[in-house]
Formats: sequence, structure tokens, C-alpha cells
Amino acid sequence: MEFNIRVADMASGQHVQGFYILTDIRCKTSSKGSAFLAGRIMDATGEMDAKMWDYAGPLGPADSGRVMLLRGEVTEYNGALQYIIQRIRPAQEGDKYDLSALVPTAPIEVGDALREVRELLGSMEDGEYQALCLTMLDRHLDSFRTIPAAKSVHHAFRSGLLMHTLNMLKAADFLAKLYSEVVDRDLLLAGTFLHDLGKEREMVRSELGLVTDYSAQGMLLGHLYIGAREVAALAGEQGMTEEKAMLLQHLILSHHGKPEYGAAVEPQCAESELLSLIDLMDSRMEIYAENTAGMKPGEFTGKLFSLGKAIYNHSDRT
Amino acid sequence: MEFNIRVADMASGQHVQGFYILTDIRCKTSSKGSAFLAGRIMDATGEMDAKMWDYAGPLGPADSGRVMLLRGEVTEYNGALQYIIQRIRPAQEGDKYDLSALVPTAPIEVGDALREVRELLGSMEDGEYQALCLTMLDRHLDSFRTIPAAKSVHHAFRSGLLMHTLNMLKAADFLAKLYSEVVDRDLLLAGTFLHDLGKEREMVRSELGLVTDYSAQGMLLGHLYIGAREVAALAGEQGMTEEKAMLLQHLILSHHGKPEYGAAVEPQCAESELLSLIDLMDSRMEIYAENTAGMKPGEFTGKLFSLGKAIYNHSDRT
Amino acid sequence: MEFNIRVADMASGQHVQGFYILTDIRCKTSSKGSAFLAGRIMDATGEMDAKMWDYAGPLGPADSGRVMLLRGEVTEYNGALQYIIQRIRPAQEGDKYDLSALVPTAPIEVGDALREVRELLGSMEDGEYQALCLTMLDRHLDSFRTIPAAKSVHHAFRSGLLMHTLNMLKAADFLAKLYSEVVDRDLLLAGTFLHDLGKEREMVRSELGLVTDYSAQGMLLGHLYIGAREVAALAGEQGMTEEKAMLLQHLILSHHGKPEYGAAVEPQCAESELLSLIDLMDSRMEIYAENTAGMKPGEFTGKLFSLGKAIYNHSDRT
Amino acid sequence: MEFNIRVADMASGQHVQGFYILTDIRCKTSSKGSAFLAGRIMDATGEMDAKMWDYAGPLGPADSGRVMLLRGEVTEYNGALQYIIQRIRPAQEGDKYDLSALVPTAPIEVGDALREVRELLGSMEDGEYQALCLTMLDRHLDSFRTIPAAKSVHHAFRSGLLMHTLNMLKAADFLAKLYSEVVDRDLLLAGTFLHDLGKEREMVRSELGLVTDYSAQGMLLGHLYIGAREVAALAGEQGMTEEKAMLLQHLILSHHGKPEYGAAVEPQCAESELLSLIDLMDSRMEIYAENTAGMKPGEFTGKLFSLGKAIYNHSDRT
Amino acid sequence: MEFNIRVADMASGQHVQGFYILTDIRCKTSSKGSAFLAGRIMDATGEMDAKMWDYAGPLGPADSGRVMLLRGEVTEYNGALQYIIQRIRPAQEGDKYDLSALVPTAPIEVGDALREVRELLGSMEDGEYQALCLTMLDRHLDSFRTIPAAKSVHHAFRSGLLMHTLNMLKAADFLAKLYSEVVDRDLLLAGTFLHDLGKEREMVRSELGLVTDYSAQGMLLGHLYIGAREVAALAGEQGMTEEKAMLLQHLILSHHGKPEYGAAVEPQCAESELLSLIDLMDSRMEIYAENTAGMKPGEFTGKLFSLGKAIYNHSDRT
Amino acid sequence: MEFNIRVADMASGQHVQGFYILTDIRCKTSSKGSAFLAGRIMDATGEMDAKMWDYAGPLGPADSGRVMLLRGEVTEYNGALQYIIQRIRPAQEGDKYDLSALVPTAPIEVGDALREVRELLGSMEDGEYQALCLTMLDRHLDSFRTIPAAKSVHHAFRSGLLMHTLNMLKAADFLAKLYSEVVDRDLLLAGTFLHDLGKEREMVRSELGLVTDYSAQGMLLGHLYIGAREVAALAGEQGMTEEKAMLLQHLILSHHGKPEYGAAVEPQCAESELLSLIDLMDSRMEIYAENTAGMKPGEFTGKLFSLGKAIYNHSDRT
Repeated sequence: MEFNIRVADMASGQHVQGFYILTDIRCKTSSKGSAFLAGRIMDATGEMDAKMWDYAGPLGPADSGRVMLLRGEVTEYNGALQYIIQRIRPAQEGDKYDLSALVPTAPIEVGDALREVRELLGSMEDGEYQALCLTMLDRHLDSFRTIPAAKSVHHAFRSGLLMHTLNMLKAADFLAKLYSEVVDRDLLLAGTFLHDLGKEREMVRSELGLVTDYSAQGMLLGHLYIGAREVAALAGEQGMTEEKAMLLQHLILSHHGKPEYGAAVEPQCAESELLSLIDLMDSRMEIYAENTAGMKPGEFTGKLFSLGKAIYNHSDRT
Repeated sequence: MEFNIRVADMASGQHVQGFYILTDIRCKTSSKGSAFLAGRIMDATGEMDAKMWDYAGPLGPADSGRVMLLRGEVTEYNGALQYIIQRIRPAQEGDKYDLSALVPTAPIEVGDALREVRELLGSMEDGEYQALCLTMLDRHLDSFRTIPAAKSVHHAFRSGLLMHTLNMLKAADFLAKLYSEVVDRDLLLAGTFLHDLGKEREMVRSELGLVTDYSAQGMLLGHLYIGAREVAALAGEQGMTEEKAMLLQHLILSHHGKPEYGAAVEPQCAESELLSLIDLMDSRMEIYAENTAGMKPGEFTGKLFSLGKAIYNHSDRT
Repeated sequence: MEFNIRVADMASGQHVQGFYILTDIRCKTSSKGSAFLAGRIMDATGEMDAKMWDYAGPLGPADSGRVMLLRGEVTEYNGALQYIIQRIRPAQEGDKYDLSALVPTAPIEVGDALREVRELLGSMEDGEYQALCLTMLDRHLDSFRTIPAAKSVHHAFRSGLLMHTLNMLKAADFLAKLYSEVVDRDLLLAGTFLHDLGKEREMVRSELGLVTDYSAQGMLLGHLYIGAREVAALAGEQGMTEEKAMLLQHLILSHHGKPEYGAAVEPQCAESELLSLIDLMDSRMEIYAENTAGMKPGEFTGKLFSLGKAIYNHSDRT
Repeated sequence: MEFNIRVADMASGQHVQGFYILTDIRCKTSSKGSAFLAGRIMDATGEMDAKMWDYAGPLGPADSGRVMLLRGEVTEYNGALQYIIQRIRPAQEGDKYDLSALVPTAPIEVGDALREVRELLGSMEDGEYQALCLTMLDRHLDSFRTIPAAKSVHHAFRSGLLMHTLNMLKAADFLAKLYSEVVDRDLLLAGTFLHDLGKEREMVRSELGLVTDYSAQGMLLGHLYIGAREVAALAGEQGMTEEKAMLLQHLILSHHGKPEYGAAVEPQCAESELLSLIDLMDSRMEIYAENTAGMKPGEFTGKLFSLGKAIYNHSDRT
Repeated sequence: MEFNIRVADMASGQHVQGFYILTDIRCKTSSKGSAFLAGRIMDATGEMDAKMWDYAGPLGPADSGRVMLLRGEVTEYNGALQYIIQRIRPAQEGDKYDLSALVPTAPIEVGDALREVRELLGSMEDGEYQALCLTMLDRHLDSFRTIPAAKSVHHAFRSGLLMHTLNMLKAADFLAKLYSEVVDRDLLLAGTFLHDLGKEREMVRSELGLVTDYSAQGMLLGHLYIGAREVAALAGEQGMTEEKAMLLQHLILSHHGKPEYGAAVEPQCAESELLSLIDLMDSRMEIYAENTAGMKPGEFTGKLFSLGKAIYNHSDRT
Repeated sequence: MEFNIRVADMASGQHVQGFYILTDIRCKTSSKGSAFLAGRIMDATGEMDAKMWDYAGPLGPADSGRVMLLRGEVTEYNGALQYIIQRIRPAQEGDKYDLSALVPTAPIEVGDALREVRELLGSMEDGEYQALCLTMLDRHLDSFRTIPAAKSVHHAFRSGLLMHTLNMLKAADFLAKLYSEVVDRDLLLAGTFLHDLGKEREMVRSELGLVTDYSAQGMLLGHLYIGAREVAALAGEQGMTEEKAMLLQHLILSHHGKPEYGAAVEPQCAESELLSLIDLMDSRMEIYAENTAGMKPGEFTGKLFSLGKAIYNHSDRT
């Protein structure tokens, strides 16, 4: 019997006991009529299908995303590993486990990352842009520390938005200098920091901080509008120059680049054009990183839904 | 010499004197070097090119859209009529002319139309939707009485927005009843009334009320966002139920139907879907009306930029 | 044991006996080699998967769509209900069951609906359009009373075409008045009545009147062409003015609005433009009605194949 | 003074007198107010702009496309030649000129081409297809001998449809043998012969046989529908097998290949697929021939409207 | 017990022993945990799923595509036949079986086909084009005799490229004469012969000559580039005129017709335009042939992935 | 009389004499028949239309792009300045003028820029990539110092390719470090340096180094193919590892990002994806810089052909 080994390290034939997150729980009946539980076992290192035969409750879909104490066996089914649960109970007060080892989390140190974000905001010369950004940071600090950048596709892990935003701020900082002839660095940095903050209300998160769904307003209004609307209101409160407030809203509303990619308006100034490209670049590079992780040199992935094509791993990514 | 005859009635060879609007004024030089003034003479019935030879000022582009006292001759050039100005001066205090005969205006009686709008808003059963609409009507009353619905394409005349909105409200009223199983009539009427109010700030108008350009915020933010943002703020002030406020914003943001037609989000409820279709229908019907006006039965227009195709006039539209 | 309860009311664990339609019958073999029968049990209120274990005939695919006397048990499989058949025989002469309770049927009274269609056709002022429409109604009366408007997507139930056509005629009647400046009401009503009559030969129907497939000519020629061709021939027989005959054919050929949606030509007059929009509107509203039926407020459907997006149900549709 | 020289041979500075076609006649006024006539002088070898200064009638647009006796001078304007008319009168009875030298005509011998068409139709083994084709040939013989295949783009000259159809029949004959495993040669030949016959009623022609416009039914119904409808009626009269009649209509309705290229339905059998490709091939090859005629090796054309690209002439086409 | 019967002739209930190719081998575990082998049994006449219950090795995926001696039973599962393996061993030295009966192969005689290719190349008048083609034929002779033209879609069988190339050469020969006014026959024949030779390095083949995958350079560079690059190098070695070398490369790079279909550049001369259409035609006709083989008249296929539509079989293809 | 003033400083009414480039020379005839010369006068600061009345040679189109000694007057025509030439002769030996003030040139110091390029290439760790890049730099050094990056759109001035390449190398250097987890810096730098070198043979340049046209091979093969082919040959000569040679070719062939933007294959590894985005970014930023140069804050450009939209200048770019 193995105890609390990492999901990424599990192998067929092992008997494993430990604390894991159980997600996507469904109650099912086999074609012959017996009830069983299906779901996915996961920790920060990976996930696989899980099944518990002849199980009729009391756990169900509403328990998805909770930490469970599990005991069972790893088998292989259809070319993939699956975990057959033999005993299950939710984690209780007093149980000892390392939550950080269970929840997939951005490979960054949150405190350091926030400090870097603050430094970059602090380097802005325009007091109006800076004041608004700092107020927004304070308002959203709790969620900004923890929320993913997406439900899937890229940065879909704890603190993913912070990681994505910081990477983009670093690129914005460099590129604003490279293209200083046409780019107002303060506007670009402000727009970069603000561009995805509307995601906080666009997504529904589980108690452990993972995105489980889009909210109704996320679907009906979108994070571009939600973010721009909040910035507009705050700019009004802080008495920001109208031109600047308009430009910030424009950067947020246009950061998806084209209407068919979800932009409410097309980028029409150098900073909004550049912001949309930096966003595209950071999300693409993360998609490459996530999808080639652990592959051997010379291999292709299958066709990725997010890119519409297969990608090649030519170097050692392990 | 003819006095103050309608532009639509002018014929080659006539000598005409009277008050007309002169628009699109440019100062030009002939290929041989002599200065002249070019522009367009217009009244409510039509417009044609105008030129004044050997004219070097003081009137210029900034005088576009003003009423002028003109004297000149109608000639034909390249198959179209043009007005050769011989004498020109801007209208002055004390001049007597009928402004309503000069400015192209919707074929409606503004007072009656506003009364009908109020009646339809008054027929709503939901007090929250109604209160917000009435406040918006009061706030924007002056411009709502007069502004065009567009710079060109359709309803590009004085009170065009009022005409477009009232037509759509009538259709919404009927269709809400026909599809009462899935359509909340109050939500549809409210969304219909509000959908284009952001145009007030999207367009720049001349002193006579015609659209001369898009504003910077109109270009960078768009009237969908401008309108939804104002409704959001007012809904907050009035304490509207969050779900209702969200739905109103959704109707406004999605009323262009598809991202490639300018929708910030796609319609996702029956009312927003229907609103986008009513808007499409009213603008299409107006494009047919404006473009086949005065044509003989059996004729096609040329290919229309607004529709991407030629259209056929099979009945007598004169 | 429950007798003849509605499919929509069945619950897991019930033992149910009664007359139901069995469709989509296939003879299958389990992975271990035993034969079984698979299909779908349905009545007017809904449908679910059905299976009969260890069944090797004589019933088979050719019996799809027939009424059967069934005895069995409702179970749950993969999150959905399924009906496990224990005994089966086709309905025979002398069996008593209410066919109208079994076949999904438009929520209209056919006699009333036909009367309304006749009234609207009767209100036309143009004798030529009217005569042609009434002849077409007589010719197609039997099928017009019963056929669905489609194989799936919307109005895919008995009398669906009548319901769809009547709704559209009502909208056409109202909108022809609203846009009377550019719309010839008689032409619009005639085109609306005729637009989908070619569907009779486009679809293959079961003995109970449901669409089971497209016919070869439906696939190779399409209902637009089939309908227009018949109208052309009849117009010739009746000596209709050539211009009118041409316009009717144009309305039918263009009613899908754009080539990529199946239009043989693009709408090029006000009536064909409006007809294509009324058709789009009525089908969209029915898709919303069918897909949100029974949902709770605040829920989204999954992504619908027919619309390419998920839709939101904000009010009580039960 | 040169007499009756070919338009293709005219050079700047020549004084030329002779019979030519004058097309596209417009009555214009110079910017200084004097009337003049503009049009294009043409014969079978080419065309150029023509002007007659200080001319106020009686000839006008209605005389476009007539043969005129002209006297004037060839000059150069904006890098192109133009013909300045000094004297003009329409050709009269008794005038002697060679009409065949004036009207642009397909480089084929009409009698021979018709004989080849008849031979290919005569080689069909299926009597039903053959009978229908021969009846159609008889019915349309006069126009089939003379009409162009298009208003512009390709084969837009006298007998262009005959040339296009014969070329396609030859290709169909060869390819039906190459792909005899899947292609019914008789069906392919019949569809090829019939595919464009609807053009006779789609286009308006001048008295000399050139296309001056599309007809109303050409715009509103299209030649695919017009042709298929006639074939359907004739097939009914001749008692053709329903399957064959359906296939002929399918080939005609689908011969543009894709809805966005004007196909009423998509090709769905080997013969319709192949017909659409043969049509594409013959029109493309003719576009290359017409646009590279007279070019030197190594030159590119400008971007062609018909192809959306420039094309290269690598060999000697003179 | 049946011995070595053709896969296309197998029927449910038969016990069959013989040599067959086993492809797509996967080692799986049933939902209850027992290991089994899944794959597909195939010979030149067809293929079906195969399973061997309670099998845990030693054969596995690496043995896919090898000839096996099998013993088992044909059953029906989900409406399709499957072969249940009871005994299995790889073919050994000394086994007697007819490889040509096992591998799906183009219905041509390779020697004859090569002779026809050589004759067509021999008929070229331009010595430079001819020399280069003959060198390329010699270089690639081994693979040209055997490789498929694709991994799937069309001509995905042994010698498929040879069959595809020869068919196209025949069409090119005929069409070059039909369009001799604009087409240089030698260039067209040369481009046709060369156009797909880059496929040799684009695909990975099994020991029996079937395509199992794309190579890395096939994915990252594509066969158009690979082929053009080789021709460029050889043209340099042979001192071919630069214009001719450029044209050959252009024909290869553009033979997919449009960028969205994989063309590196668009066809810009008559020969490249025609080559792309001949390629399209030959692949389409083969898709029709392969997908309607064995169908009854009057049937449609399901929607084909390769064409995006269903196709109709109107005649007897058995 | 002004001597040798900058084109950007010319004003209406000035009499100007000096050395300027005369481009786009055409010999024309006025509508009244007198010959004149038309062209454009330009220096490094700008350009405007030029005309010389009553001029019949000997200068003509073949003299386009040469330096001329001109004397004339600046006038205004159609709202734009034009230069009316009174005397003209080509520059001769012995004339004194500053060529660098006449030819539009990248705002960089060529020597410094080349040094920076060499430093970045020198910082590569992989000897194979480095050796190939240095050889390519040596081979193309003369043209790399001077050629524009395009005929128009962006960087269409002397040394434009060097400026574009250096900017991209700087961005590549920074982003390779930011995304070091997935990006091989050496490969990215090498691909960035090489990506546009094929442009040397894609464009035809005038004696002063400006692009006057595309070459035949530029049109028929494209600079992606031309560049990749040369790299392939050189990699072969230098014995570069096959994988590396393949990757370099892949980066060059895919750097336009999508087939519809001209990519021969899609980017399929992190470095090619990033290279295509850096190229897009640098060209977009340059388009913003060139098009907003000299505009006042708060102004929009007209709709730009290169971007398909108008852009906004919010800050002071003078």
C-alpha cells in the first residue's frame, strides 16, 4: 500500500491510500442496473478517472471539488489509468494533509509576484493611472491572489490570473520601451494590469478556488464589459481626466483583438493593439508549456482544441 | 429667376435664388491654378453638388452645414445636376426662411411620436423597468426628439432615432404578444426603448442636428457599451433588481446580433434574440424605402453599399 | 404497476405497462455476444432510451415508429432514465389507446388554425395571388394539416408546418401594415403561405406522420426549388401576370436569406427580405420555446447545435 | 486619312473614317458648361474611349450599340488612346460594311461547332436524355447560335455560349471515359449541354447580340433555376423517368459548385461534381486566354477582378 | 470452418481461420478489469474490428500492420461485424500466404502504369523538363511504385500515388490540347508528374507499405515545400533555364489551389491553375468511387468528412 | 526663390529650385490634346504630385526614381499641394547634392544597427545555428544594409529590413528569456534573423534602393519559400543536424502565422508561434508610428488599407 503518493507518479497495479480532491462526481448506474460513483481524482500534479462500484451514496455531485480520504487500486482502462475506489470519506476537521499539494497552483510565489506587480505599478509616472490601478488592486486583492485566469485552455489553476498578469506586465514594460515612439508606457501598464479583472465576476469558483463554471453575468455581459464598467465608475469617483478614462475602457474592451475573438471594439490605438498582442502571446506560450510538459523530443501532441492544430516538442521539456 | 424652389424640383437651365444649406464645403484650386469653392447644396427634399468659380473665401469648411442665401444656375455635369453659385452669403438675423423645409427630417410628427412612445412605456407592468425607462427618456429628451439614428445608411435625418425607436416599439409590442410563451413583454419593450440611446454620445452633430462625424468615444467604445454603462449606473441608483439590470445591459450589448456586426456579446435569451431581429428588420425596411423612393416599377438600384446587393422596385413608390 | 402514464412523468424504479411509440429500433449484440433490442420509447410528452435484453426478433428496424404494447421497468443509466422492456407486442386491431396522446403534436387546434389561415388568405385584395394560394391549399390540404415543419431543430412535430405558417402569416399581416410604404401585403402574405409547401416532398414521413428522413429529391433539389417549380407551373395554368408569378417564385427561392443558409438567390425586394426575417424570427422563437421548456429560472442550456450557443432562461417556463 | 482600319491597329495621331459600333453613349457637360458626347468605339478587335466635343444631340444613350459612320482623330489621354469624333451619323440602309468585322465574336465556326455538339449528343446511348437535349437544342437554336456566355468576365462575345458549351462537352466526353467507374457519360453530357441554357432569359441583349444587362428574372430567379424549371416541364411532357429528370435538374441547380458561388444546391453525385469542375476549368482557362492575349513573356497582368489575383504570362501569346 | 476467405465475404456466425493483417492493435482492460486485445483485421477487400478476450500479450501496438495467422468467429456488434479471435500468432518464415491478397492495393497493373507514365514523359518536346522528370522518376522509382497517395481520404492504398499521378497525366495530356492556346503541355505534364513526389518524405509507412502517420518534416514543412525544394536543387544541378525551374517550383507550391487548402502560393499561370483543378478533380472522383462502392442505387452515404456532405449513388456500382 | 528646401516644408505659393527625386513618371495628354509630364517629387521627408505642362520629352517612365534638378512653383490642387515644374534636367556628374537627404531612410545608424545584430547573433550558444546565420549575413550583407522591408505598408524605406530585423531580434531576446520554459533562445534568434532574407530576391529595386515592384519569382514563389530554400541548401553544405535545419525552415515558412496571411505552413512549435507574433507586433507598431506621425492629439486617421480600420492618435507625436 502506497500512502499519499502524487497522482503523476501512480502506476497500474498500485494500492494507494491518501487525501485527494475528487471532482466531477456523478452517480451512475451500470447497464446491468447496479449503482456506482464516477468522478476524477486529482492533486496538484495531475488527475485521472475514478470509479467506485456498487456505491449508491450519500456522496454526490454537490461534493465535487472536496478533499476526500480515499483507498483503492490503480488499474488501466482504454489505455489510460483509472483509480478504483474501495473506501471513501470526506476530509474532516483534524485530518492532516497538505492542501497546497492537492490544488493545482501557478508555479510562482504569490507574495513575490504581488510585490513585482506593485513595483511595476509604482514605476508609472502618471498619478491618475497609478491611483486607479492601486485602488483596483486593493479592492480585488483577495481574489487576485488566488483566482485562475480561465476555466480551461490556459492558466486554469490557482493564482493563474496573477501569473498571467505579471508575465504580461513584464512584457509590456519591455515593449513600451522598445516602441516608445508610439506607446505611452503608463497607459499600456495600466491597461495590462486591469484587462482581466472582470474575470472575478465572470467565473464561479469552488471553495478551493478552482473555476467550476461561468456565472450568468459572465455569460450575458462578459468580463470585458464587466471590467470596463467598473473602471468607468471608479474613474468617475476619482475624477480622472475623461480622455484617460476613455482610453482605459478602450484597452479593456478591445483586448481580445478582433470581434470574432470576443473584442467588444477593435483596438484603435498603439497601446490597445499591443495589449491584445501581448495577451495573445502570453496565452499561446502557456498553452505550449502546458501541452508539451513531460513530452519526449520529436513528438507531436494530438490536435489541440485551443489552437486547432497539433504542436511539436523538439526539445526536452521534462 | 426661381425663388426658394425645392432642390428635388430643380432642373438644368434654371436660375435659382433662395436659402439652402451648404454642406461639405471645401476650398479647391483648378488644375490651371484658380481658386474655387466646392460643396453640396441641400434642403429637406434632396441635395446636389455645388461650385463657385473663382472664389477664394472667406467662407470655408468650418461653415459646412450652415444656411446660406444663394444665387446661381443649375447645370448638368457628368449626367448629374450641379448648382453653379454666383452670389453667396450666410443667413443673418432677420432673414426669413423656413428651417423645417431645409433640414431633412423624419416623416413623423414629433409630438405624436413621443406620445406614442410614452404610451407604450406606460403600458409596461413592471415598475422597475418602467421607472428606469422614463428617467432615461427625461434625461435624453432633447436629443431624443431630434437626433438621427445614424450618420448614413438609414434614418440619417432629423428625429430619425425617434422614428426608428417608435417603429421598433410597435413591432416589439405585437411580437411580444405573438411569442408570449417565451418573451417577457416588459423586458423587450424596455430593451427596445433603450437600445440606441448611447448614440447620443457616439455621434457629433452640426448645429442643425445632422450627424457630421463619430465622436472619439463613439469610435473607441461604441454606442452599445456607452448605453449599457449608463443603464447600469442608473439601475444602481434606482435599486433595480440585479437580474433585471443584468438583462437590460445584455439586451443593449447584444442588439447587433453577431460579433461581426458589432455585438459585444451574442443574444442569449428570447428577448435579446428578438430585439436584434426587430432592429435588423426596421433598418432593412427603411433602407428599402429610402433607396426605392421615386423609382419606377421594374427598375433595380445599383449595388447598395449598405446591403451588398442591388434591390428591385416592383411597385409604384412615387 | 403504472398504466399508460406519460413519458414525461416516468421516474426511476417504476414498473410501467401501456401503449407507446417505439422508434429508432436497432437489433444489437452485447459485447459478450447476446442479442438485444435498442430503441426509444416515446409519446407526445417526451422520449427516452429503451432496451430489451436477450431479444432476437422478430421485431426490427422496419417496425420503428409503430405503436407497441409494452411492459417494463424504468431505470437510470448514465444520468438519464431508460426503459427496460420485459414484454412487447405491436398494437393490434381492437386495442384501445389514444393516438393523440402518443404522437408529439403542435399545441394548436388544427381546425381553428386552418380557419385562421383561410381568413388571412381571404383578406388578400389581389385575386390572382389569392386564387393561386387557395388552389395550393386545396391541393396540399391533407399534408398541410399534419406534416412537421422539419425533421428536427424546430416545429418537428405533427402539424408543425401549419403552426409555423400561421404564426408567420400573423406576423406578416402586422408587419405589412407597419411597413406599408414599401411592402405589398398581398405579395407578402402569399409568399409566406407558400414558402415551405415544397417540404411535403422534401421529407419522408412515417405512417404516424413524423419525419424519418429526407427524400432523394429533397436532398438533390431542396424544398425551395420544389415549391417554386410547382408555383411556376400553377401560375402558368392560371394565367397569372408574369411579374407576379416571378415575384412569388423569388420569395420562395430566397426565403432562407443568404446562400450559405440555403437561399437559391438573395432577397432583392422588400417582401422577400421581410419574409426571410419573419421565417428566421419564428424559427428562432420556437427554438427558444422548445429548449427552455421546463427549465428553472437562472439556468443555461448546454450549447445548442441549432444556434451554436447556449441560451438563458430567466423566467418561469414550466 | 485611314479608312475602316481595325480598332486594334489604331495609333495616336491617325485620322480615321469608317463604320464602327458606338456603345455606352452618354450625354455630358464639361465643367465649363459645354455639352459633349462620350462613349466607346469598338469593333471585333478591340475598343477605346470616344468623345465628341460640343455635341448636344440628337444621338443619345438609346443609340448605344448601333453601327455608326464616324470620322475623327486618334489621340492619347491618360496613357490610353481615345477617338475624338468630328463627324457622326448612324449607318443607314444601303451602307456597305462588314458586320462580322465589327461585333466581337467567338473564334469558332458556328456551323462546325453546332455539328460537333450534335455529334456528341448523338453519341449518347440513353434515348430519354438524348430526346430531351435535342428538343432543347431545337427550341433554343437561334439564341444558342449567337448569345454570349456572360455579360463580362469570360466568353462575353457573340456565340460565346456555344463555344463554352462545346469545349465543356469535349472535356466531359474525355473525362467520362477516364472516370467511367463512377460517371454516367450520358447524364454528364446531357447536364453539360443543358447547364447554361437558362442564360438566354437571364440576360438582355442588344440588337447586335451583345449582353447589355441582366433581365429582372435573371436577377430575381437566376439562370440555374430558369434552366432547371424548363427542363422539369419538358421532362414531364416527354414522360422521362422521374429519377433521370431529377438528376438533370440537380446537375443544373448545382453547377456553380458551392452556395457562395451561386449553386442552389451542392453537387451530390459524381456527375454534378464533375460538371461543376469542368465549368470552373473552362471559364478559368478562357479568363487566362483573354487576359494574357497580346502580352509579352515575363509580364504580369494587374490584379484581375474575376480571379482576385494577378496572373503571369510566361510564353508568347501574340 | 472457413479458410482464408476474403474479409468482404465474411458473415456473422462463420468460424474463420487464415492469414490476415492485424492493424491498430491496442491492449485494453474491460470495465471489470480483465485484459483484452483490440484491433482491426484486414485484407485487400476490407476490414472489421477484431477482439481477443482475456489476452494479456505478448503482442501489442508495435505489432500493428503485421500479417497474423488467426482463428476465430465472426459475430455482429452494434450493427457491424466483428471478428472474435480465439488463436493468434504472427506469420513466420515458411508460412504460405498471398501478400497481394492481404494489402489493399490500387486496381492497376504497376508495370503497365509505369510504362504509361514513361510514355507520357517521353512525349514531351522540351528536353530540360523531360530530363528532370526522368531523373526524378529514377530517384524515386522504388517508392513511386508502391506508396499510397494519402494516409486516408483517397488513394490511401498501395501504389495509390502512381494511380493518382497516371490518371492526372492522362487528363493533363487531353486538357493541354483542348486549351493549347494558353497551356504549355510540357510544363503541365512535368508539373503533374512532380506535384506529389514530396509525399514520399511526408509520410511514415509500415513495412507492408501502408501509411501509418505523417513524419515530422511532413508536418512542419509539408510535401509541397519538400517537393519544390528537391526540384530546385536538381534543376540547379542540371543547369535548367531559370524561368523553367521557377515555373516548376511554382506549379508544385500552388497545386492545392488556395492557401486555405494548403497552397504555399496561389496559382498564377494557366498551367498551375489547371494542375490544381486536375488534382481536385481526380481526388474528388476517387472519393466518389471509394465511398459509393457496393452501395445500392438510390442510397445516400452519411455525411463524408472529406467532402463535408453526403453523396448519392444513382447507379449500380457493385 | 527657395533653394533645396525639404518637401515636408514646402508651402503653396513658394517658388522652389533644387535637387529632388522624381518618381512615377508618366507622359500624358490633356483632354484638349497637349502633352504634359506627371510624376511625384520626393525627398527623405515626404512627397507630392508634380506636373510639367506642355512637355513632350525626352524624359519618360524609364527615368522614374532618378535625381533631377528642378525649378518650379508649389500650388494647391484638390486640397493637396502639387509642384508645377518649369525647368527640369537630370542630375549630372559634378552636381552637388546630399543623396542622404533625398532618399527616405530608416531612422537608424546602419553601422550601429549591424553591430547590434552581430552582437545578438554572437550571443547564441549553439554553434550550428550561429555559423549558418553568420554565413547568411556575410552573403547578403550589401543588400541587408540597404533594402526596405516592403514595397509599402511598413518599413518601406532604405534600410527598413535592417531596422525591422533588429527590433525583432531585441524583442526575441527578451521574450526568449521570459518564456525560457518553452522557448529555445538560439532557435528563436536564428529564425528571427533569417525570416525575411528571401525578400532580397522577392523585390525589384531602383538604383537608389527603393522597391519599385515585385520580381517574378517573388510573385510565383514568395519570400518564405525563397528564404527557406536557401537556408536548406546552406544547412546541407555546413552539415547542420537535420532536426535543426528542419526547424529553421519551419520558422521561415510559417512566420506569417496563418495560411490566409501567406504562411506556407502553420506555426507548430513555440519558437515559430512566437516568431510570427513578434513579426506581427513589429509591423503593427511601425504602421502606427508611420500613420500617426505629425498628427495632432485627438485625431483619427482615415481607414487604413493595411489595417482595415482607422486609428487614433491620443498623444503628441510631432
